[in-house]
Amino acid sequence: MREIAIIGIGQTPVCENWEQSLREIAVDAIFSALQDARRETADGLFLGNMLSGLIGSQENLGALVADWAGFHGKEAFKIEAACASGAAALRLAMMAVGSGEMESAIAVGIEKMTETKGADTTAALATAADADYETIHGLSFVGINALVMQRYMYECGWKHSDFAPFSINAHANATHNPFARIQQTITWNDYQRARMIATPINLLDASPIGDGSAALVIVPINSLKRPALGRPVVKIIASTAATDTLAIHDRHDLLWLSAAEKSTKRAYAQAGITPNDIDLFELHDAFTIMAALSLEASGFAERGQGLRLGLEGEITISGRIPISTRGGLKARGHPVGATGVYQIAEVVQQLRGEAGSTQIPDARIGMAQNIGGSGATIITHILQSE
Amino acid sequence: MREIAIIGIGQTPVCENWEQSLREIAVDAIFSALQDARRETADGLFLGNMLSGLIGSQENLGALVADWAGFHGKEAFKIEAACASGAAALRLAMMAVGSGEMESAIAVGIEKMTETKGADTTAALATAADADYETIHGLSFVGINALVMQRYMYECGWKHSDFAPFSINAHANATHNPFARIQQTITWNDYQRARMIATPINLLDASPIGDGSAALVIVPINSLKRPALGRPVVKIIASTAATDTLAIHDRHDLLWLSAAEKSTKRAYAQAGITPNDIDLFELHDAFTIMAALSLEASGFAERGQGLRLGLEGEITISGRIPISTRGGLKARGHPVGATGVYQIAEVVQQLRGEAGSTQIPDARIGMAQNIGGSGATIITHILQSE
Repeated sequence: MREIAIIGIGQTPVCENWEQSLREIAVDAIFSALQDARRETADGLFLGNMLSGLIGSQENLGALVADWAGFHGKEAFKIEAACASGAAALRLAMMAVGSGEMESAIAVGIEKMTETKGADTTAALATAADADYETIHGLSFVGINALVMQRYMYECGWKHSDFAPFSINAHANATHNPFARIQQTITWNDYQRARMIATPINLLDASPIGDGSAALVIVPINSLKRPALGRPVVKIIASTAATDTLAIHDRHDLLWLSAAEKSTKRAYAQAGITPNDIDLFELHDAFTIMAALSLEASGFAERGQGLRLGLEGEITISGRIPISTRGGLKARGHPVGATGVYQIAEVVQQLRGEAGSTQIPDARIGMAQNIGGSGATIITHILQSE
Repeated sequence: MREIAIIGIGQTPVCENWEQSLREIAVDAIFSALQDARRETADGLFLGNMLSGLIGSQENLGALVADWAGFHGKEAFKIEAACASGAAALRLAMMAVGSGEMESAIAVGIEKMTETKGADTTAALATAADADYETIHGLSFVGINALVMQRYMYECGWKHSDFAPFSINAHANATHNPFARIQQTITWNDYQRARMIATPINLLDASPIGDGSAALVIVPINSLKRPALGRPVVKIIASTAATDTLAIHDRHDLLWLSAAEKSTKRAYAQAGITPNDIDLFELHDAFTIMAALSLEASGFAERGQGLRLGLEGEITISGRIPISTRGGLKARGHPVGATGVYQIAEVVQQLRGEAGSTQIPDARIGMAQNIGGSGATIITHILQSE
């Protein structure tokens, strides 16, 4: 496959956006990415989205957004992999450009979740779980994650407050991100006193939903003239996806994200690196427990020891493996089908040196990991600045 | 891009299937395709589906079906492009294998529409139209097609019964297809006396919904040893997609499928052929009007003259351009996200000489065209037997 570069990124602020429709938000991100890339258009559109049908009564979303973006007649597809839809859209866009079928493509993630017109958002999010064996029993998506977190605390001997550093770090970083949903720090006390949602997950363990869109323009790297746009070229040096059972009771080990292990192992091999070479890691902290499990299965901590990285300060901007550097899902917000694309855009900001107050010094290699369901679809991308 | 061959096909009978779940039906088609290809597994799964969220309360469908099919850990994605989801899944699977990221893939289309658990199927299907500008006014999907058909009759001077040959031909061919939903002939009288659904679309202008799944196994053609499986190798010699506005009032010409024109022109160029070289055409006869428009925009008739092919007997098995040779959407049935894959499987049957009583003599080149919305996403594939 041809090597791929990301030459443009666009993001809309994650918020409660009742002023703009689904298509308008998506097109804002697309235009912003095209402007950043100094391009007028691209050959195809790959759109990551989970809930447009259930919440917006709108499918055929690829064609809809392509038309609104002025991509008259061009091919466009919606890709769905629950909360991993965004990274899935990038992976399929990469294969399209990598195969030579297109000379450029846009991967855009879009979700509009707060204006529901009567739809039940909790029920809609639960479609990421197994409808026949989990949801049918009344389990919500946060409920499933709560079961995993409870078991983790019991089996690995952690107390609830040990998860606090993930949320505190994410919120601290989000204060410097204009696109973040909650640009506000939280304290250890805030975390401990937050309202319980589904024991042991409290309000500050969980990421907020939101409306938002992020977009990327990709091209074959050998099509670029150097120096390109007066800034480092960011290339994708690994792209992998793996799956696991949707139902958590079907897993061999409830506390091990086997799809994360599979996808990162393959990604490290593709990139020819080890976890030690990663300068930052935009992981999928939809819930604090998922941050811990992701760090462990991706090779940054032993099983059951992911919390230690937080407690020892290793996940901050100056730590050994900075995570959620622009706020993560926890504070940037989690417009589900868009999240995977936000993560990549944030890694690109870091690798270009455009991350402002949360800039990792000399960041050269960044990883993003997007999770659909409670570990059923896991997609990993590793990016490097030239 | 590497050249791609289809080495296995699988279909489940299109029916009202209340005995099997969504995942079970999909896996039946996948296993059947793998058995036909004499393979155990494939590297990735591309799943075309439109309504699993709205009707089945199930998203994250790629991982779900991958697990059920025993594709443990392998990557899997759901692709949505309304009723063109099936062909979209094949197109993206092709790019994955064509790019070298995979050595084999399965494209599977799946839809379970008749067991709705309270969901409103008509409302769910209307999500293929523009929610903000069409559906909001109470337009159903059949209503939109009725507007187009009415205008066509008025502008081009046809009467309702002139559409009858499309339905009569489809039903006649379906009597020889064990997977077809309605294996029953209809007469001119039946057509004229059928109950009106949305004037001028009557029951026999419209395709029946259904539950069903079809699957394809694809590999790079140069990975095959010859002779392969003791039958002709079927290769994909063109694959193209194009889009148009969702809302019909936004179109330059209501009676011209510009996305069909774009995608077929590109497809003929890719394959190096003209419409005269096509031995059969599995078109998207969701409504009789769509069959007419598809024939016209794809180069088989002048604008407004598609009906003539039916009236002159040119669309039957022995005609100049046989269509709906296994029953088409009209009689095989239209499980929306699966339809595009059924169409391809049917073309493969023809090119292998496995179409029994509806076999086109010496069929060598076949085309399939899958339409999402009333022309918003149109995907064309041309297949050739070696």
